[in-house]
Amino acid sequence: MAGAYSKLEKKNEAIAHIHHAIEYLEFDQLTIMPPEGAEARAGAMAELKRIKNDLLAAPMLGDLIDEARGEDLDEWQSANVEDTRRLWVRERAVPADLVVALSRAASRAEAAWREAYKRSDWSLVSDELAEVVSLTREKGAAIGAALGCDTYEALLDEHEPGLTRAAVDALFAPLRDALPPLIDEAIDRQPDVQDIPGPFPIDRQEAFAEEIMRTLAYDPARGVFTTSLHPFTTGTAGDVRLTTRYSTDDFFSAHYGVVHELGHWHYQNSLPAAYAASGQPVGQYAGVGMHEGMSLIFEKRVGRSDAYLEYITPVLQRHFAGGENKQKEWQTPNIAAMARRVDRTFIRVEADEITYPLHILLRYDLEKAMLLDGSVEAKNVPEAWDQKMQDYLGLPTIDDDRRGPLQDIHWFHASAGFTYFVTYTIGALIAAQLFDAALRSIGDLEDQIRKGNVGPLLDWLREHVYGRGRSKPTMALVADATGAVLSPEPFLRHLRARYAS
Amino acid sequence: MAGAYSKLEKKNEAIAHIHHAIEYLEFDQLTIMPPEGAEARAGAMAELKRIKNDLLAAPMLGDLIDEARGEDLDEWQSANVEDTRRLWVRERAVPADLVVALSRAASRAEAAWREAYKRSDWSLVSDELAEVVSLTREKGAAIGAALGCDTYEALLDEHEPGLTRAAVDALFAPLRDALPPLIDEAIDRQPDVQDIPGPFPIDRQEAFAEEIMRTLAYDPARGVFTTSLHPFTTGTAGDVRLTTRYSTDDFFSAHYGVVHELGHWHYQNSLPAAYAASGQPVGQYAGVGMHEGMSLIFEKRVGRSDAYLEYITPVLQRHFAGGENKQKEWQTPNIAAMARRVDRTFIRVEADEITYPLHILLRYDLEKAMLLDGSVEAKNVPEAWDQKMQDYLGLPTIDDDRRGPLQDIHWFHASAGFTYFVTYTIGALIAAQLFDAALRSIGDLEDQIRKGNVGPLLDWLREHVYGRGRSKPTMALVADATGAVLSPEPFLRHLRARYAS
Repeated sequence: MAGAYSKLEKKNEAIAHIHHAIEYLEFDQLTIMPPEGAEARAGAMAELKRIKNDLLAAPMLGDLIDEARGEDLDEWQSANVEDTRRLWVRERAVPADLVVALSRAASRAEAAWREAYKRSDWSLVSDELAEVVSLTREKGAAIGAALGCDTYEALLDEHEPGLTRAAVDALFAPLRDALPPLIDEAIDRQPDVQDIPGPFPIDRQEAFAEEIMRTLAYDPARGVFTTSLHPFTTGTAGDVRLTTRYSTDDFFSAHYGVVHELGHWHYQNSLPAAYAASGQPVGQYAGVGMHEGMSLIFEKRVGRSDAYLEYITPVLQRHFAGGENKQKEWQTPNIAAMARRVDRTFIRVEADEITYPLHILLRYDLEKAMLLDGSVEAKNVPEAWDQKMQDYLGLPTIDDDRRGPLQDIHWFHASAGFTYFVTYTIGALIAAQLFDAALRSIGDLEDQIRKGNVGPLLDWLREHVYGRGRSKPTMALVADATGAVLSPEPFLRHLRARYAS
Repeated sequence: MAGAYSKLEKKNEAIAHIHHAIEYLEFDQLTIMPPEGAEARAGAMAELKRIKNDLLAAPMLGDLIDEARGEDLDEWQSANVEDTRRLWVRERAVPADLVVALSRAASRAEAAWREAYKRSDWSLVSDELAEVVSLTREKGAAIGAALGCDTYEALLDEHEPGLTRAAVDALFAPLRDALPPLIDEAIDRQPDVQDIPGPFPIDRQEAFAEEIMRTLAYDPARGVFTTSLHPFTTGTAGDVRLTTRYSTDDFFSAHYGVVHELGHWHYQNSLPAAYAASGQPVGQYAGVGMHEGMSLIFEKRVGRSDAYLEYITPVLQRHFAGGENKQKEWQTPNIAAMARRVDRTFIRVEADEITYPLHILLRYDLEKAMLLDGSVEAKNVPEAWDQKMQDYLGLPTIDDDRRGPLQDIHWFHASAGFTYFVTYTIGALIAAQLFDAALRSIGDLEDQIRKGNVGPLLDWLREHVYGRGRSKPTMALVADATGAVLSPEPFLRHLRARYAS
């Protein structure tokens, strides 16, 4: 007779099958589904999510978990049981009518946001956001009661399991002090850029992206590469899909988008095969912060390094300058200056790696104020946002909500939601600390990158991150891999080295 | 309180949601899924099919059907209840272990067929086919017992609901006599063709296909157009997808493929909206034969008519001859001779519209002999095939199984299976009789087609076929639309007019 643990694995596998359908249908929706297909798709997706939630919240799953805990399990199996339990507890903690209410409120808020964004008018979305905040607090409190943590942490745990609010506060505080003077210095010291005027035809950008992908060890037998409105990566090991979008006046935005997504692609495609294939939680990525770390290692640490920029200089010339080109603007120093431009900007997604964390700190501050003590209400967000932007980046936003709090969809969108922003900067800190460890471990890593060889880096990441799945929480995986708890120091050191020395 | 009928509609809607997932994931699989994704996909698809089958065979569905039959229903609702009942009876008639056994046997047979095809060696697939035949007979007998019909009819009912074997026999018998002499005459009389040598680059063929699609009223807001190994059409109203494949030495094969699939596309996209959107059986296409009829109206009746060929002559010149071209090979008579070439060939999918039905008659004869009286066994198929090919088309196949019984995957493939071939020729007969009725009803139909306007034809088909869904069986819809029961005469008349006058 099969033990409880193996029955539990079967249940997880069934859940993963439904999740597979949801995941690839979402990809379809974001890449090729025509507009008139939206209604039928929404119905099918709701049904699949209902089935998945029912499977995940089944009382019988709790019995199997309890029984399995008493069985003789190895470390991976134990971690699998505990993570299944975490998901089961989360799922059962939220009453069904709250799930429905939140999903409806988020739909209304998203629709209102689209209109508010168009008119740059926060008042059009304020009531809808207040409703989302109120229901999100309820949800967070319910999960927090079940998991034994505060509302914010309960919500954050969905994206980055096990990450505490205290840890986030401790990691972010030094950034608050160190970044503003560093930004001044970086802007002061940055070299002039000699612009390379476009247009850069999309078919050339495609060919360039495909060459770079091959260099960065993309394997078409295990992936799909296409375009979408917003770049993303999705899928499970063996079939991971990444997208990009092209702008004809800039060859770098699509390129760095691809390099970023390829970091996600490698992680998602190299999760521990046995557990990933049968859809066990322990075979999944550790958390969204770790995932972002994997993409930022590629986009920032590799992609903007001297070594990489030297590697791509002739490749860029070949694709966009008609071959070898001796002019100054096509040489590595100018390419590097383009790739590392620093600027105080209003818009998070356009921000460079030094100013980016301040955009996140602002959002983290406001989320806590809305979700924990209620000291900021939805209707007061524009004033609070303006105040923070002036403090952190010296930019007033009160006269244009679109470059203020309306710029991101997250708070108005069911599937991202609150607490997600935090993971972007957690990812940046992880990328810095892990990449430094890889540099120490692989003596000639920079030389390899200069030759366009990321093989040794991938081997290191496979051993220390990819192949470890969710066998431990992100913080523990980082500590194991680097010999130290996660700290903002490697990130700050990296920024100083690249921008202020 | 909701009545049984409306509860039944809800159940059908839930089944349709799962079917939606299966359908679009299959599209994904046949168009972009990378090879390493196959295993995870197979697991997810099996789970989705299991869920769908469970929903479809639920005893409670039978209770709702019985109750709903006693309610005050309109004609459409009654038809919906009866077709739901047919599907429910079919689903419950086949024991679960037989379903599993047949699915496994079909997988083995398909794998064996791939190898046998490669080596052109029937003996490599003979045992596997015997197993499939034996289990298929069992399945057909079980469904036949439940529906009150013979084994063959029970299987055919899956593809073309309500079509009897007696009707097929009566429709096919005249073809058996009339076609061979007609083929002789057509070959005798056909004009010489002046070849147009390639290659025809794929991007030009794409541009040509897209222009023709616009002419034939394709709407990108309700569809997706891409490539796949074998062309097909799938999806539900609002999001119907069609594919093609290109060969650089021939601009006609992809073109007629697109025109064919576009006939399917229009039908599938114009099913009765209210019933189709909620996934009710009455809102589906009447049957596979009717669907083929819709594609053949476009591919054969429109696509190879003088009017259409006159319309595309300058379009072809523009895309492939560099603009207006006075040379003889680029004029309509030569284009028409290319489009209507007649030849006795070994391979069904390469056959023209006169010889095609004989390929189907042969398969129908052998299917009956295998499934009904067992007078042909799997191991004797090559001899029986050779005999029939000599009788019907004068071509011996005994020395090459690949141009004999190994050429088609259907018998070795779970989802097509036995009795499917019949629908191709039923479709040809339907296309002829319906198109004649449309010609009678729309006085200037040919002139409209000559101008590239299929609007009036689509309006007629919407009224008489598309919009009627599965409110009646195919035969009844044809009789309503044309004022006569389905007969082979319009088809034979059309062939004589086009090829022997």
